[in-house]
Amino acid sequence: MKRIRRLGILTGGGDCPGLNAVIRAVVKTAALRYNAEVVGIRDGFRGLVENDTRPLGFDDVSGILPRGGTILGTSNRHNPFQYPVLDADGNRTGFSDRSADAAATVETEKLDVLVAIGGDGTQTLANELHKQYGIPVVGVPKTIDNDIGGTDLTFGFDTAVAIATEAVDRLHSTAESHHRIMVLEVMGRYAGWIALEAGIAGGGDVILIPEIPFDMNLVARKIRDREKRGKRFSLIVVAEGSRQVDGELVVARKVQDPSDPIRLGGISRFVGDAIEDLTGIESRYTILGHVQRGGSPTAFDRLLATRFGYHAMETAVDGLFGHMVGLQGTKIVATPIAEAVAVPRKVAPDGDIVKTAMALGTSFGF
Amino acid sequence: MKRIRRLGILTGGGDCPGLNAVIRAVVKTAALRYNAEVVGIRDGFRGLVENDTRPLGFDDVSGILPRGGTILGTSNRHNPFQYPVLDADGNRTGFSDRSADAAATVETEKLDVLVAIGGDGTQTLANELHKQYGIPVVGVPKTIDNDIGGTDLTFGFDTAVAIATEAVDRLHSTAESHHRIMVLEVMGRYAGWIALEAGIAGGGDVILIPEIPFDMNLVARKIRDREKRGKRFSLIVVAEGSRQVDGELVVARKVQDPSDPIRLGGISRFVGDAIEDLTGIESRYTILGHVQRGGSPTAFDRLLATRFGYHAMETAVDGLFGHMVGLQGTKIVATPIAEAVAVPRKVAPDGDIVKTAMALGTSFGF
Amino acid sequence: MKRIRRLGILTGGGDCPGLNAVIRAVVKTAALRYNAEVVGIRDGFRGLVENDTRPLGFDDVSGILPRGGTILGTSNRHNPFQYPVLDADGNRTGFSDRSADAAATVETEKLDVLVAIGGDGTQTLANELHKQYGIPVVGVPKTIDNDIGGTDLTFGFDTAVAIATEAVDRLHSTAESHHRIMVLEVMGRYAGWIALEAGIAGGGDVILIPEIPFDMNLVARKIRDREKRGKRFSLIVVAEGSRQVDGELVVARKVQDPSDPIRLGGISRFVGDAIEDLTGIESRYTILGHVQRGGSPTAFDRLLATRFGYHAMETAVDGLFGHMVGLQGTKIVATPIAEAVAVPRKVAPDGDIVKTAMALGTSFGF
Amino acid sequence: MKRIRRLGILTGGGDCPGLNAVIRAVVKTAALRYNAEVVGIRDGFRGLVENDTRPLGFDDVSGILPRGGTILGTSNRHNPFQYPVLDADGNRTGFSDRSADAAATVETEKLDVLVAIGGDGTQTLANELHKQYGIPVVGVPKTIDNDIGGTDLTFGFDTAVAIATEAVDRLHSTAESHHRIMVLEVMGRYAGWIALEAGIAGGGDVILIPEIPFDMNLVARKIRDREKRGKRFSLIVVAEGSRQVDGELVVARKVQDPSDPIRLGGISRFVGDAIEDLTGIESRYTILGHVQRGGSPTAFDRLLATRFGYHAMETAVDGLFGHMVGLQGTKIVATPIAEAVAVPRKVAPDGDIVKTAMALGTSFGF
Repeated sequence: MKRIRRLGILTGGGDCPGLNAVIRAVVKTAALRYNAEVVGIRDGFRGLVENDTRPLGFDDVSGILPRGGTILGTSNRHNPFQYPVLDADGNRTGFSDRSADAAATVETEKLDVLVAIGGDGTQTLANELHKQYGIPVVGVPKTIDNDIGGTDLTFGFDTAVAIATEAVDRLHSTAESHHRIMVLEVMGRYAGWIALEAGIAGGGDVILIPEIPFDMNLVARKIRDREKRGKRFSLIVVAEGSRQVDGELVVARKVQDPSDPIRLGGISRFVGDAIEDLTGIESRYTILGHVQRGGSPTAFDRLLATRFGYHAMETAVDGLFGHMVGLQGTKIVATPIAEAVAVPRKVAPDGDIVKTAMALGTSFGF
Repeated sequence: MKRIRRLGILTGGGDCPGLNAVIRAVVKTAALRYNAEVVGIRDGFRGLVENDTRPLGFDDVSGILPRGGTILGTSNRHNPFQYPVLDADGNRTGFSDRSADAAATVETEKLDVLVAIGGDGTQTLANELHKQYGIPVVGVPKTIDNDIGGTDLTFGFDTAVAIATEAVDRLHSTAESHHRIMVLEVMGRYAGWIALEAGIAGGGDVILIPEIPFDMNLVARKIRDREKRGKRFSLIVVAEGSRQVDGELVVARKVQDPSDPIRLGGISRFVGDAIEDLTGIESRYTILGHVQRGGSPTAFDRLLATRFGYHAMETAVDGLFGHMVGLQGTKIVATPIAEAVAVPRKVAPDGDIVKTAMALGTSFGF
Repeated sequence: MKRIRRLGILTGGGDCPGLNAVIRAVVKTAALRYNAEVVGIRDGFRGLVENDTRPLGFDDVSGILPRGGTILGTSNRHNPFQYPVLDADGNRTGFSDRSADAAATVETEKLDVLVAIGGDGTQTLANELHKQYGIPVVGVPKTIDNDIGGTDLTFGFDTAVAIATEAVDRLHSTAESHHRIMVLEVMGRYAGWIALEAGIAGGGDVILIPEIPFDMNLVARKIRDREKRGKRFSLIVVAEGSRQVDGELVVARKVQDPSDPIRLGGISRFVGDAIEDLTGIESRYTILGHVQRGGSPTAFDRLLATRFGYHAMETAVDGLFGHMVGLQGTKIVATPIAEAVAVPRKVAPDGDIVKTAMALGTSFGF
Repeated sequence: MKRIRRLGILTGGGDCPGLNAVIRAVVKTAALRYNAEVVGIRDGFRGLVENDTRPLGFDDVSGILPRGGTILGTSNRHNPFQYPVLDADGNRTGFSDRSADAAATVETEKLDVLVAIGGDGTQTLANELHKQYGIPVVGVPKTIDNDIGGTDLTFGFDTAVAIATEAVDRLHSTAESHHRIMVLEVMGRYAGWIALEAGIAGGGDVILIPEIPFDMNLVARKIRDREKRGKRFSLIVVAEGSRQVDGELVVARKVQDPSDPIRLGGISRFVGDAIEDLTGIESRYTILGHVQRGGSPTAFDRLLATRFGYHAMETAVDGLFGHMVGLQGTKIVATPIAEAVAVPRKVAPDGDIVKTAMALGTSFGF
């Protein structure tokens, strides 16, 4: 058992409901159970490199449990190993390796552990700092896409699925009484978990995910089959990163090429228009966007985030640095970060959940 | 007092939470209080022209109060005076005047009143049938945009504002902790009520509505002013029909001209990209779409819809045909349809609600 | 037009969703539009008497719009005219008139206006201070029971109705599939607005309110009538202050007499047991309690509260002291406080909303 | 692999969000994947004994996924082995063993499998029918209390926790601004899972559960400790079946002894009053009751229920009768019913979740 006197904590990457719940659990456990001080690091790795920190006490975490966002701020542009160099006007002129500065902050601040809450990017960088500088890192996985290894589920994902499912519910009644095709675009550039689970929970007729390239003609056939059985409406849930079988259509929220015609509309618009052309039924689309990543976490996510926070501290006390906490069954376990981030957790096209959806008649467009 | 033995009811136009609550109130009041029969007309004016009806009894309306959509179906393409003529393949080859068929259905079905639930389009057509054929019409106003005259509020609007406000709430925490500009596109092609009220209720920093053409530079200035005061994030709520001061940009969900570059992205994308260019702060956008018009109505809308339904029956019994029910203060009143639809109810740029928002620092981009 | 340089603000009485939204609107309007300073008074009249205040600036009201409660705290035990006198142990030994101290605080703090947010108790006291000491008071009405005059609606009420309606919705499905009588007890000691509107919005079969004393036998008859028509379940929404026609049963959350058998269970338990005895159908009860008064306000209440806050400032600038803002139709108006609190706004047993409910078959037990 | 041509399905016991989702998944899987017919059995074992059934097809399960309750109805008073005998007036005069009639219905209806959805009571009876008559039973576990073995989680539980957590959230703001003790009574007669998880997710200060008898003085001490640190409010989440350490206080929703003073108020009232006496801080209580068991299931519960339904069919095809489906980690597995119901799943007082709560400072009153 390792004595933890001071603990540093940072949040990296995109927003995710439950970040504050993790921070609160870490601060409370550290203070109450181990009499340790907590140092909050501002804006992810930026604060670590630039030693921009603040003490985190009880009052700072009071009332934050149900709140979205992160009281520490975050940044997804400040890789310590490839840190942006700015000119006087704040424009980036290049990159430099500032990882030694990150290590220096840990030294200066006398941190006995650095808790890094973030997705595979953040975990990989934290692990690299651990390997190169011996920084005592403990990871807490965070991704609303639920695509990280080492854990059955991540906090934030349940909230995202809940929000997307509520949207499907709302679209359902309109679709049914107005004889329309409703297309709902949800997050998921590389992994389709949100679309898959919200699609099943909302009773979607078609689910399109990155892991299963789709054939527009098969989607249209499904919709015509429904029409033949008197169902003049259909609901399509599509992950933003879905693509057609020919492999050419790859759409994401922010594609770099402005000449890409798909870029401007999102894949939901593309799918809606194409299906309208093929079936003659009017379509409407919704792009949920960041509504899925913000706001108050579900009870499920708050509990999971709280358990992760408590166990991050326990993992540090156990001296398991370079490890990441995770949920396996009903237990919280620690896994080497390297192992957890080795392979992203994707939807298996022949896995149990896809099979379940197909048994109930959902089409994946293939 | 007019004896009502049989009552016909139809729903026209787009979806709106509360339609079923109106239908239920009409059926229950007719049966319990006046021992009248109710005939449900399928798919709006299509069912009236083609005499496609069904009896509506207690069991048919049991449990529908909290449900979105309409159990009668609807159509917004079947104007009795300009009715689509189809060929054998179902393609439209032209239009013909079928208003006499509509009147015939009223005759055949022995309807003592026709309750028409719909927006200004539906109300205008119903009133025309009333004027030309003496059909005993009573109107119930329906528009989530809240832009019809003769009533302070329409049912469905409160639900739309509630959904949009919840989205603003969710975007808020991300915007704040991730230093982003969040753009939320809500409905409102000609009237900006949803954007205005959800913008105020959610604490939006910028609200863009069709009634107040905006200057992108002033929007950017607002965002830079916030940045100077340490607020590195902003929330923009934009009605889909908003336009720039130069008057050239008019964007709607379904623009016919496919070469219009704006068409593909929605105005939120356009605004987000422009602001990102002008301020250098990253932007993200959400297009709520039909999520705003579907699903379970709020308690407020259920009560209003129920009161409208009850009063539609009372208005018929009072013999006030060609009238539409409406809320004025705390009372339900009947107004001549012609008067109600004469001028759409738009947001007054110098009205009290806009003034309130401006006093609190919200920018309308002008 | 009166120049307002410093403004004091206090919140009195029980909790109500939207208090923070009013505070925020007052602070922002004062600062931005009139360059006035705002002084927050802690814990209602206690802070006024004891001069316990804090400056309220932009940062203090940032992010509070969607939050329940009040950042100023409140108290409903500190009547300036009958102020509790405590001994060294904090036990109350009597009362004394401290109204002069309240007036002194206004003087010392150089307040050009005192905005008092509260129910009829708070308004009456504020008006008394206005009359006796010339304190420049502007009132903002607050009561989730919606029973104050001078305004069509108060903020917080819509939230309470929304929460109660959601509870009715949830009870409905269980009642239906499990053949039960579900009794929901909502707030309303003297006025039954919450029960009435949530009862209608949720489709309750029986609504019991203080304004209409009920006969248990008639309630039971309604339930048996439903059973004869194959409906083996019923939903009863009862306001806590409802009573039987014999006038003997008066139940409230906190009755002083501990020997009163009703006291322990709440009226819902009493009604449920009685109906179970009379009909033989199993009953279950829910007591929502303070869940109705707390938490995030609905969009409707946030807008109304914001409009009230803005107009409180405008009313001060207009020099209309001793007045209270209120909603009348779509407008915000100012009414003399004395007039507004003269007669509580109760449900009219022969009013339009009760008539609507009865036309749809709802029983009020009489 | 067993050929399933006809499948019977029943729901037993109390309400639970997700029952309809299971039914829908079974019907769809049976029809689409195995071309099997489904027979719906009305009101649990009553319908089985009395052969009261209905065919269940696609149209019957259309739209039921998000709905609470069960379209099949249920009963918790019709044990086939101890079946109520009624006289002409419908009064129960005794019991008789009707299990042979239940077996006869399976024979008559030619059921190749009987899917029994219910809690440990229903599972035990179903298994007894399996053992005594060889009825090919497959179980689907259902309990919002989450206290059945053989599965990590049951559907309905997540919904109950979500509803209770939302109530805690709402009580929180009032407690804080009004300096009150708020007591929330949730379900859980023998197992405290709902109180435990909602208590953690909502940030409750005290959690009282049946598995950990509490000492009122320690609860009061916790509250006084908070007061010393400036926190003049506290939130207590109490499971209905909690009891004091002296073992005398056992409270449940329906206690048979009417002379029990606790009976009338629920444990929340008892705890609230006792704490108010001990600390002098005002308390308020809420009894959520059946609001926790009804209404639309969360996305999580819909997915879990759908997976259970699909796997119930697969388990039948695998010929694993006398087994019950369950979630273990991310997988759905089948366990012998006898094993699953052998020991109820209770909260371990020294388990990980209780430890987590305690590390964060939550008191369990011991």
